[in-house]
Amino acid sequence: MTLRIDRLQADHYLLPLPRVLEDSMHGAMSGFEVVTARVTDSDGAEGVGYTFTCGVNGGAIADILGREMPPRVEGRDPSLIEAIWKDLWWAFHYGGRGGPTVLALSALDMALWDLKAKRANLPLWRLLGGYDPKVPCYAGGIDLDLSPQELVEQTHHNLARGHRAIKMKVGRDRLSEDVAKLAALREAFGADMPLMADANMKYTVDQAIRAARAFREFDLVWFEEPIPPDDPLGHRRVLAEGGIPVASGENLRSLWDFRLAIENGVTFPEPDVTNCGGITPFMKIARLAEAFHLPVTSHGAHDITVQLLAACPNRSYLEAHGFGLEAYVEHPLVIANGQAIAPDRPGHGVAFDWDKLEPLRA
Amino acid sequence: MTLRIDRLQADHYLLPLPRVLEDSMHGAMSGFEVVTARVTDSDGAEGVGYTFTCGVNGGAIADILGREMPPRVEGRDPSLIEAIWKDLWWAFHYGGRGGPTVLALSALDMALWDLKAKRANLPLWRLLGGYDPKVPCYAGGIDLDLSPQELVEQTHHNLARGHRAIKMKVGRDRLSEDVAKLAALREAFGADMPLMADANMKYTVDQAIRAARAFREFDLVWFEEPIPPDDPLGHRRVLAEGGIPVASGENLRSLWDFRLAIENGVTFPEPDVTNCGGITPFMKIARLAEAFHLPVTSHGAHDITVQLLAACPNRSYLEAHGFGLEAYVEHPLVIANGQAIAPDRPGHGVAFDWDKLEPLRA
Ligand SMILES: [Mg+2]
Ligand SMILES: [Mg+2]
Repeated sequence: MTLRIDRLQADHYLLPLPRVLEDSMHGAMSGFEVVTARVTDSDGAEGVGYTFTCGVNGGAIADILGREMPPRVEGRDPSLIEAIWKDLWWAFHYGGRGGPTVLALSALDMALWDLKAKRANLPLWRLLGGYDPKVPCYAGGIDLDLSPQELVEQTHHNLARGHRAIKMKVGRDRLSEDVAKLAALREAFGADMPLMADANMKYTVDQAIRAARAFREFDLVWFEEPIPPDDPLGHRRVLAEGGIPVASGENLRSLWDFRLAIENGVTFPEPDVTNCGGITPFMKIARLAEAFHLPVTSHGAHDITVQLLAACPNRSYLEAHGFGLEAYVEHPLVIANGQAIAPDRPGHGVAFDWDKLEPLRA
Repeated sequence: MTLRIDRLQADHYLLPLPRVLEDSMHGAMSGFEVVTARVTDSDGAEGVGYTFTCGVNGGAIADILGREMPPRVEGRDPSLIEAIWKDLWWAFHYGGRGGPTVLALSALDMALWDLKAKRANLPLWRLLGGYDPKVPCYAGGIDLDLSPQELVEQTHHNLARGHRAIKMKVGRDRLSEDVAKLAALREAFGADMPLMADANMKYTVDQAIRAARAFREFDLVWFEEPIPPDDPLGHRRVLAEGGIPVASGENLRSLWDFRLAIENGVTFPEPDVTNCGGITPFMKIARLAEAFHLPVTSHGAHDITVQLLAACPNRSYLEAHGFGLEAYVEHPLVIANGQAIAPDRPGHGVAFDWDKLEPLRA
């Protein structure tokens, strides 16, 4: 019996942060928007997806996902995700092909994969191929404004929470301040702790090369988003002349963006399942990286992404990056001894506490 | 005295088309959405901008432009367009950087330039440098579904309206049908009528090369959007192996997208002022093309774009592409003898009939 999509529902929430966060280019962030997608099939089964933003564009996402997409997916066979994805990509291409449109598509796609895996009674990581449910992870801090001492304290806290690898923000106006913070971490935690630095697109190519060279002595796993994603060819110089691995991807919006990035010096592609178009493109990006003999890492949505990296033999570290969503989820991600564990519940394993979210409706 | 922006207002309309139009990738289009931006300064002067879509993503644009952008621009000095543009680009970057976000920014930017030119009591084309108000133009048909005979009739009609150059859609499932239509136009109107063909991203690179070779005998001015914009490097092969000039741009969303396109085989860059980020990036794209010894053409919004190309010594043909908006504009673009004339009214010269638009509110 072929099932049909009976309903697609979108909801838009605003999650305040306990503390205002800051990085080099997004400025102060006081809250995150979450837009959820719920797909119900004709048998009554439900798949859930979500996307998030730093506080803007969420109303646009909710309008596309909740008003424009439903008439285009309701009545369709939910198991034909590739067909639905391609049709929506082209239906929304003019004026879309990026931005809020792709974030909306990401949430829908995630819900369809959740539904598929639940109906198959399989956790997503097994459905997608199955590699290893224990995924190495790191704590990604949004901590540009912290002093070296505060950063060391935050890192003690993260290690106590089960982390073994740490990423910090760089991109202070004075490069020497970034260097001092990296030095403080190496001094406090030794040479072997896996350490990454994230510039959030702050630098020009020349500045990034200068920074990379200054960071070299700290033996970083990767240097993240040294320059804007709009200059894919620029990454080639950063990699070759800076001399440390380069990560990028949280601001790329398609499989094709990643192909350009990978061909041009991004050695740690880091798709975000909530903004690269969903699970469908995320897995293609991961396999593309494998074809190029590269690892794949991630950005955001650690609770879902652990399932995806657990299906990839080339998975690198999962970014564990909470913005408070774990307080609204039934089974928050378990992290122990530097690893995140993909749960064996059917689907992606994330169930929202809708009642608790209700007061946060945007 | 420094002026301030008192108000930014967005309105969202749906303009039905008298006839359903069709191209190779967007399918049937029964109407266009128009989202307008009105900026009022502290002196009571008003600038107007707009963007449009083929029928989707308009609600998202209106939400960003009408709800999220006003608190970020109200109170600012409207003459500092570069500063406002850069701040908004970064404020909306996460979840934005393309799609509806950039269309919203385009409409706002257009309104700010209109305001600036009105306050200076200059038509925009003179404010932007001033080259020649008579801009060669062509009639861009959305006519993939027409037979060769119908296409010839449409072309007679367009020549009677003052056009001298014609663009037609290609991308039928059988290449021979496209060839038959091109042959019918050449037979009816001779070898000298400037003629372009637009595939709307239908082809793979290999298919595009095959099509370009089949089109070569018709001496096209350009072959437009042979392949999707997501493969900038692919255009290089189409140009080199297909052997005819390549146009692209209506689906590029930034100055940086155009740099990649221009470096990789797009010889006729065609920005759309309503979706490339506005007049600010449009003019930079035009000057970038000039730096590469290339002409610049355009997509959409002919009423505004005539002002921009009238400021460019490297301007190629303006696309005259009405979707019915001219019925809601006080002084529709004048086209005579193959030329569009940039009016000498202050600003961009387009004033909407708001009362007439009112019943079409989305
Ligand atoms: Mg990052
Ligand atoms: Mg076109």
